[in-house]
Amino acid sequence: MSEHVRQTEPFRWEGVEVRPYKQEGAHFSGVTRQLLFEGGDGLGCQLRYFEVAPGGWTSLERHRHAHAVMLVQGAARVLVGDRIVEARTNDLVRVPPLTWHQFQTAGSTPLGFLCMVDCDRDAPERPDAEALVALRRDPAVGAFIRV
Amino acid sequence: MSEHVRQTEPFRWEGVEVRPYKQEGAHFSGVTRQLLFEGGDGLGCQLRYFEVAPGGWTSLERHRHAHAVMLVQGAARVLVGDRIVEARTNDLVRVPPLTWHQFQTAGSTPLGFLCMVDCDRDAPERPDAEALVALRRDPAVGAFIRV
Repeated sequence: MSEHVRQTEPFRWEGVEVRPYKQEGAHFSGVTRQLLFEGGDGLGCQLRYFEVAPGGWTSLERHRHAHAVMLVQGAARVLVGDRIVEARTNDLVRVPPLTWHQFQTAGSTPLGFLCMVDCDRDAPERPDAEALVALRRDPAVGAFIRV
Repeated sequence: MSEHVRQTEPFRWEGVEVRPYKQEGAHFSGVTRQLLFEGGDGLGCQLRYFEVAPGGWTSLERHRHAHAVMLVQGAARVLVGDRIVEARTNDLVRVPPLTWHQFQTAGSTPLGFLCMVDCDRDAPERPDAEALVALRRDPAVGAFIRV
């Protein structure tokens, strides 16, 4: 990566590919991913930019690594553990280890957020039938989650 | 830190202290620092927000760890090695290991940038007389740097 990467249009950068969020699956909707800083050479972490279309959502998942998130456009409803938070542009969201989480766009404009993670991290786990039963014991969580 | 930290006014967040950039020194001007994510517990990196007043500048320094920077308000002139780049809001700037760098505000509004670093990192080094002579061999760099 060059020392300086210009934004070419809002939330698009020169030489940064707009990628699918994940390779396959129906457990998310309307999400793209851009790797802004890939880490390595003096940096053990990555910064990614995710964009979620109106009506879209990210995977409901958990993992041992944490997420440090900053919204940079739009608004979100976010499940973090047993809480559903309403977050706006420039708000911060922290997802602790082994905490079920899902981001959903709130409102009629795209949601864009930065997400900082360690380069060396475990793969996400999606909820099995038993975990879904446990999550749905809370009616608010049950009404929120998309799987 | 809570799972959700709201922005309370532009680039200020609930419970996040606005700190001096460094404890002392005349080698920087008009800079504040806020620690947005401190790392630990599943995250080996930090995200800081630095704000530089019009006419201000950060320390001229280098270190083995890298910086991954994203401007989030205003514009900057940035020394990265032997290059001076003109960066705008949402541009990305990468500072490789052992590379002299300095951020200066460009224009009449504050410069605000996110900076991602490893938690475990070395202390910055400032240029000694010999390093300054070497830097000033390039007239553009010599005219740019503030020490």
